[in-house]
Amino acid sequence: MDLWFEEYQTKDMVISCRVLRTLHQEKTPFQELAVLDTVEFGRMLVLDDVIQTTIKDEFVYHEMITHVALNTHAKPVKVLIIGGGDGGAVREVVKHQSVEKVVLCEIDGAVVEASKKYLPEISCALENNKAEIVIDDGIKHVRNNKNTYDIIIIDSTDPVGPAEGLFSAAFYKDIFDSLNEEGIFVAQTESPFFNDSLVQRIFKDVSGIFPLTRLFLANVPSYPGGLWTFTMGSKKYDPLDVDIEKIESMNTKYYSPAIHRSCFILPPFVKKLLG
Amino acid sequence: MDLWFEEYQTKDMVISCRVLRTLHQEKTPFQELAVLDTVEFGRMLVLDDVIQTTIKDEFVYHEMITHVALNTHAKPVKVLIIGGGDGGAVREVVKHQSVEKVVLCEIDGAVVEASKKYLPEISCALENNKAEIVIDDGIKHVRNNKNTYDIIIIDSTDPVGPAEGLFSAAFYKDIFDSLNEEGIFVAQTESPFFNDSLVQRIFKDVSGIFPLTRLFLANVPSYPGGLWTFTMGSKKYDPLDVDIEKIESMNTKYYSPAIHRSCFILPPFVKKLLG
Repeated sequence: MDLWFEEYQTKDMVISCRVLRTLHQEKTPFQELAVLDTVEFGRMLVLDDVIQTTIKDEFVYHEMITHVALNTHAKPVKVLIIGGGDGGAVREVVKHQSVEKVVLCEIDGAVVEASKKYLPEISCALENNKAEIVIDDGIKHVRNNKNTYDIIIIDSTDPVGPAEGLFSAAFYKDIFDSLNEEGIFVAQTESPFFNDSLVQRIFKDVSGIFPLTRLFLANVPSYPGGLWTFTMGSKKYDPLDVDIEKIESMNTKYYSPAIHRSCFILPPFVKKLLG
Repeated sequence: MDLWFEEYQTKDMVISCRVLRTLHQEKTPFQELAVLDTVEFGRMLVLDDVIQTTIKDEFVYHEMITHVALNTHAKPVKVLIIGGGDGGAVREVVKHQSVEKVVLCEIDGAVVEASKKYLPEISCALENNKAEIVIDDGIKHVRNNKNTYDIIIIDSTDPVGPAEGLFSAAFYKDIFDSLNEEGIFVAQTESPFFNDSLVQRIFKDVSGIFPLTRLFLANVPSYPGGLWTFTMGSKKYDPLDVDIEKIESMNTKYYSPAIHRSCFILPPFVKKLLG
């Protein structure tokens, strides 16, 4: 059978992947969920027709959304992940010795269940004894947990549908209040090529709330254009001050101490967005 | 009209772009040539159904295939570009004060003509008095010009069709002989995600011929996966020894002195390919 999945990366650009099998398909209270087995990317989690993570390239996104922030903090103990129901971020966070607890706050329990069943390589750490899974709205969770976390990771879908509120200045203020006095937050913040105004707006919003704001880059081939931004807000620690010689190796495929430094080196066209 | 261009990036992965107008279409003696005006990428040069360069992102590829090598050489005077009929590499090369002559050796004159007519922002320097355009086979040209060039840039299509020979070890040996004693060559060498065995094989071949071989990365969103490799072979100069403080700014949008250093920082999964 000649089966293809098509994602409208924008209304004028589509990526199509040949599908071997549809492993799962379900309409949850929040979104359309599918797990597809594709030729080029292997198994793939799709939410509302948008690729979230794939077996082939998930390591890039999950290593970069976690280790850069955790290795910037002197001693991250309590970590919150908002979204990230596939468990990939949890898997990377628990590699850090200092971490005693990682709370995963995912609004859609169906994402967690499907990931446990069909993406074990990604979801494997969800059963870890340091991990606590909360099925709830991340916005509500941070409002109810002030001055609590060392690290908050916003591992969200695109800024449409359920995740829209996770890209607002009001939410970044709630994040600030949910972090303790040395806290750091990091969020996936879309493409500098195809969503430059959003990248620009978020950096401005976060800069208005946190004493230190940094943007870094990684290449996720299953996302539009490949190049992806992550925005970090920090109350005390600067990722550029980290002594990368002291970063302990964690058996990663994209992140490394050298990448910890180089991911902040922005091409002029990206730097320009930050004003 | 609902018009789309589809590129099979692999036989199981397709990128589709909405087309506003087909500006030019022709069957040359070497390949199928088209210039399309697309919504997401603007005007686009397409050869044998593969995107070569686009108005939106051409700066990444053209700045990175030129400035890294030219700023590694103490005084590049004579430069050869093989392929690159769109003229984008020439445009960047002539920004370097020391360059007295840049020879563009393009096998297909139709590419030069179409680029002059439909892609003036890219082809603008083809009329520059430092530029000499030779319509010929690059393999023949390097064999007939021994010990001649300071820099040779292989700005080719994919390793199928006309460009196949430009990815062979025998050709890299001819390149070595066509360079003078301090010469450097650089080539676009495809994706580390979707063509890893080719990247690996080329690095091994070049390492067997040149005293110094380096691989660097850049993100070209119109290419499969975005992340792209460039392989450099050098007889004397090491790009990592360059004092980046001394690099003169050249009004670039992707390349910068800091990028000159950071583009060689490879994620572990890429480093692994180099053995």
